[in-house]
Amino acid sequence: MTFIDGGVCAPKGFTANGVLCGIKKGRTKNDIAAIVSETPCAAAGVFTKNLVKAEPVKLTMKNLADGKAQAVIANAGNANACTGDEGYENAKKTAAFACAALAAAGKSVPQDDVLVCSTGVIGQQINIAAIEAGMPALIKGLSGSGAGNVAAREAIMTTDTKHKEAAIQVDIGGKTVTLGTMAKGSGMIHINMGTMLGFITTDCAISAAMLDAALRESIEVTYNCVSVDGDTSTNDTLLALANGLAGNPEITAKGKDYDAFLAALNALNVAMARKIAADGEGAEHLIECQVTGAKDDLTARNLAKSVISSSLVKAAFFGKDANWGRILCAMGYSGETFGQAGTSVSFRSAAGEIEVFHQGVPLVFDEDKAKKVLSEGEVAILAKLSDGKGSGTAWGCDLTYDYVKINGDYRT
Amino acid sequence: MTFIDGGVCAPKGFTANGVLCGIKKGRTKNDIAAIVSETPCAAAGVFTKNLVKAEPVKLTMKNLADGKAQAVIANAGNANACTGDEGYENAKKTAAFACAALAAAGKSVPQDDVLVCSTGVIGQQINIAAIEAGMPALIKGLSGSGAGNVAAREAIMTTDTKHKEAAIQVDIGGKTVTLGTMAKGSGMIHINMGTMLGFITTDCAISAAMLDAALRESIEVTYNCVSVDGDTSTNDTLLALANGLAGNPEITAKGKDYDAFLAALNALNVAMARKIAADGEGAEHLIECQVTGAKDDLTARNLAKSVISSSLVKAAFFGKDANWGRILCAMGYSGETFGQAGTSVSFRSAAGEIEVFHQGVPLVFDEDKAKKVLSEGEVAILAKLSDGKGSGTAWGCDLTYDYVKINGDYRT
Repeated sequence: MTFIDGGVCAPKGFTANGVLCGIKKGRTKNDIAAIVSETPCAAAGVFTKNLVKAEPVKLTMKNLADGKAQAVIANAGNANACTGDEGYENAKKTAAFACAALAAAGKSVPQDDVLVCSTGVIGQQINIAAIEAGMPALIKGLSGSGAGNVAAREAIMTTDTKHKEAAIQVDIGGKTVTLGTMAKGSGMIHINMGTMLGFITTDCAISAAMLDAALRESIEVTYNCVSVDGDTSTNDTLLALANGLAGNPEITAKGKDYDAFLAALNALNVAMARKIAADGEGAEHLIECQVTGAKDDLTARNLAKSVISSSLVKAAFFGKDANWGRILCAMGYSGETFGQAGTSVSFRSAAGEIEVFHQGVPLVFDEDKAKKVLSEGEVAILAKLSDGKGSGTAWGCDLTYDYVKINGDYRT
Repeated sequence: MTFIDGGVCAPKGFTANGVLCGIKKGRTKNDIAAIVSETPCAAAGVFTKNLVKAEPVKLTMKNLADGKAQAVIANAGNANACTGDEGYENAKKTAAFACAALAAAGKSVPQDDVLVCSTGVIGQQINIAAIEAGMPALIKGLSGSGAGNVAAREAIMTTDTKHKEAAIQVDIGGKTVTLGTMAKGSGMIHINMGTMLGFITTDCAISAAMLDAALRESIEVTYNCVSVDGDTSTNDTLLALANGLAGNPEITAKGKDYDAFLAALNALNVAMARKIAADGEGAEHLIECQVTGAKDDLTARNLAKSVISSSLVKAAFFGKDANWGRILCAMGYSGETFGQAGTSVSFRSAAGEIEVFHQGVPLVFDEDKAKKVLSEGEVAILAKLSDGKGSGTAWGCDLTYDYVKINGDYRT
């Protein structure tokens, strides 16, 4: 497996673009993106578990029901959530405008093969006139080179300070298969589904059912292990489109090829999960919690998630304070069981590693060294249990003044 | 029912005191409190559901197993949590020192009728020498007048900016029954058990079993509906001691007298729940979420709890931003179901009431008026559903820079 450049345009047969159509007053970044495959794709998606689903989520779930798709339209600046029938009609119109523009460009794509995603403020009707006006230029500018990709990844950013993309190549069935991805997500991020917008393209030949299985398996150990602030949004969507142009024998069942695909997908999604946590709203530190020695992997993952979700742990990292008691506390209320007497806790970063709790007993440790370890941009919490061989990792970020500032006045 | 002064000393036969014994370097407030009944009490307690329980919690659970107690010793400055066998021995020693000092003052109290509670930093051994040295003065100064009460309520404060106490009188079986309480709690507060230290005294004659039943019933609609930051602590304890000196016919079963006692207990605990939320770490606003029209009371309460636990809702209140979309979002991920199309949302405070979402449809509203309503210290969110007759209330506070500041450097 090798990481490469190119994001969603890295796999064969995918083009992308982004333009600024004016959905939100004052925005100067691109605000609408398109990803289009030259051929129909097997497609899968996972969606927010929030009962209050945004209108485009409802439409996209419907359009995905047949396991096929060919294009994605995603906008920032308005979530089109809590907007009722008018909002749902606007999501449908967005797909219709895309079809018309694609037809004008000589590409015939059925309207129910266009998936629509939105992100931004909740509870305001979307500026559909701006979307209609911007669609022809968006589609006309589709490109499989760097330009399309770069324009698209910017168009889905909201409070993100960095664009987030990755691409990876893996050998499957004697062919080079490529997977690409881009995502947005900075606040309203929590461990319950993808909690952001994410798009995965691949030229792998894989059935819709296997793509769906791989996607669901992968998010359990990647996107579902990220938390910024404990809020599961109304718009979370992670889509995967596979057009088969790599020419590998189609993956239609579990086995060696499926495993190779899943491994590449996991590597891709872990890279993105880390990027999302590191760019959490206001974040100064990426916090990775690695739990080992748990009774099983699920227990380990749930313990790790509880730690990185704790406001008090997060605030302590902001203060570079080795307050490990809060880590034990968060493990304790995770709902999982573990043997406290066999538990040790260390902190590790580029500045070194320091143990603070050993086999159930507090250690006297060098506070200056601890502060140095915690001052790095990326810090790992290592919780070593003595209950078994289960391991799991979760990613979060610190809680800062800027998180409060960003969210104290986001809407107006 | 009438609220009166006097806190835990308001009921007949209870004395209290607090002194500064020097558990934590630099603390100038009292740091250890005692509450003692002149006669043995029926006693009940509810405790943290955190798997990682502080050592005094373990001891107090054991000492309460027989439904009897007569004294409580509570300290701030050190939680005596994650401190292993040495910590447990120190909790036992604390009870032993109290017994010895009580005996010296002519009061014979069995050691297993002394309950011990601690709050403060996790993971450091407690200064047991300071406790031993301070105990004689603590016990000698016990008083049933205002002075004892005032000294005790200060001794359990950590980051609390205000002491928290209440007392209430109610007629039961032709006698005036008094209930008193004090509590601490500002951070690491979440809806899962009492999430703080709280002590309830009463002169009501009530069996330990009925006291336990009333306590468990009451916390469901009071303490368990408060969240400051989503962290359930290792030390949460709410204790109730009833010495029977009011002379009412002993309550030994459910019925009219039990209901009267429960109503008074609920009123007392609601008053304290509001005080705790209002004094949440860094809080500038008390947020009360009232859900009505839900399919049942439990659903309403869970929806309300989800709203006041949301970091994004909390940050919006800090910014006085009428971002109601986040309220719908938090209701949506509560795990409960409700009809979005029949839902309306308003904000209400001393400055007026403003509706922002009506029967599933966003309203265009006066932003200036909304800002005025949200600028008050106490703001209610009214979520009116159309699913039934269930109602429930939860209490929280806004998320502020000061919360981050307080918790970024609490330990050192």
